Amino acid sequence: MKNESLEEKRKRLLAKAKESVSTAYAGEEHSLIEAINTYLQLEKIENLVFERLEEWYSIYFPELRLNNHESYAKFVKQFGSNKKKVSEEELINLLGDKNKAKEIVATIAKSIGREPSEEEYKNIEALADVVIELSELRKEISLFIDKVAKKLMPNITYLIDTKIAAELLSKAGSLNKLAMMPASTIQLLGAEKALFKHIKYGSKPPKYGILFKLQEVSSAGRKKGGRIARIYATKISIAAKADAFSKRFIADTLKKSLIDALKKNSS
Amino acid sequence: MKNESLEEKRKRLLAKAKESVSTAYAGEEHSLIEAINTYLQLEKIENLVFERLEEWYSIYFPELRLNNHESYAKFVKQFGSNKKKVSEEELINLLGDKNKAKEIVATIAKSIGREPSEEEYKNIEALADVVIELSELRKEISLFIDKVAKKLMPNITYLIDTKIAAELLSKAGSLNKLAMMPASTIQLLGAEKALFKHIKYGSKPPKYGILFKLQEVSSAGRKKGGRIARIYATKISIAAKADAFSKRFIADTLKKSLIDALKKNSS
Repeated sequence: MKNESLEEKRKRLLAKAKESVSTAYAGEEHSLIEAINTYLQLEKIENLVFERLEEWYSIYFPELRLNNHESYAKFVKQFGSNKKKVSEEELINLLGDKNKAKEIVATIAKSIGREPSEEEYKNIEALADVVIELSELRKEISLFIDKVAKKLMPNITYLIDTKIAAELLSKAGSLNKLAMMPASTIQLLGAEKALFKHIKYGSKPPKYGILFKLQEVSSAGRKKGGRIARIYATKISIAAKADAFSKRFIADTLKKSLIDALKKNSS
Repeated sequence: MKNESLEEKRKRLLAKAKESVSTAYAGEEHSLIEAINTYLQLEKIENLVFERLEEWYSIYFPELRLNNHESYAKFVKQFGSNKKKVSEEELINLLGDKNKAKEIVATIAKSIGREPSEEEYKNIEALADVVIELSELRKEISLFIDKVAKKLMPNITYLIDTKIAAELLSKAGSLNKLAMMPASTIQLLGAEKALFKHIKYGSKPPKYGILFKLQEVSSAGRKKGGRIARIYATKISIAAKADAFSKRFIADTLKKSLIDALKKNSS
């Protein structure tokens, strides 16, 4: 390529760079990372929109209490224009809970809220629509994450929840990077801020990051939780190497030794 | 009521309390406050969802640049499953911009992005749906704010934008409270944090809060902007009294004296 002109060289290198970017984005790894990031963001967004709906609708029915966002939004859509038209039967259908339905019907009779005007209702109805749609979108993305994470990381997802696995992948940047991390780094993935504070200001060192979401870790105390997170991180690190490089399924043996290690730790 | 039993007294007082709450929520003032709060929150939420959509879709078409959120989302819905099926004519229809459409068609031919799988597309399509719905909801609420703010605050909204008026109302808590505030308080509504910092830590005192959103204030410097905000606040304070108490329309005279005062200030 010695006789190449500068322009030719520029073109060749540009094409090469483009190709390598293309290859990096070709696999499903990146869409899995986008999916988990979107999922986590949507959780927060759904809460924010729901808060607005609940606050606004509480002008018309301040006594309504429903823990489930989607049920609340469906109630608003079905009965929000005039809560007095609620029938107990329809409400049981909507909530699948006879006692709760009866309780709400009784509350409506005594409610101090007025009915919304047609225009007001249009707004809260549309707000309820967004809550329902967000909640459905989140379920759809959740299924996608499950499927792709199990396909790309059969070993890791055999040990831990698919969403936690996807979050580790997202923080690491790629499966290859995750596979090359020592267990101690995996243990602290997602705790970068706390680690930085520890180094800079001498606050307590973090003992876990994303792995705090493991039920075993979050339900244990700080000290014990740290040890459990470390045990998990060790096995995840081995599983990640299998998922990224050898592509062999070794997670059944890994899981057994994980359970053994956890038992030993707790005894 | 001397012969009342304790139980009767309790019931009477409870009924009275309920009634006063009902009355407070009876007017449209509260739904206007909910509307403006929801509107401001939705602006942020729409940005967050759009960011997720743009980042995810950039796996498949990283070169796409569209400033308008809704256009971007509509592009994803219409052509996202396979960008190669774009026709220039359809794209012109969607964007209403011939040059931009041509530019995009040319970019597609050279794009380094792959096409999404069916499942990937389902997710980004649903994400695009949410962006479009949020954007439509925001428009609807905006119309509602315009209408109700003009009705409840004919004088204030004659002087300033309906959304800024609604924000002042929301911060004050009620029209009566807003009407009883001195101009200096109205000038600083929404700058509570900065004011607190000034009092506690001696940082620079704020010169405006919500009124910074007035084009005349934001385009002026800090010192001049503060004076303009003060002029506006003085007139708003008078207008608020008319809206809350006398219910007379005095804003045409007010606006003239506002314009005079602004002129005097700038000369």
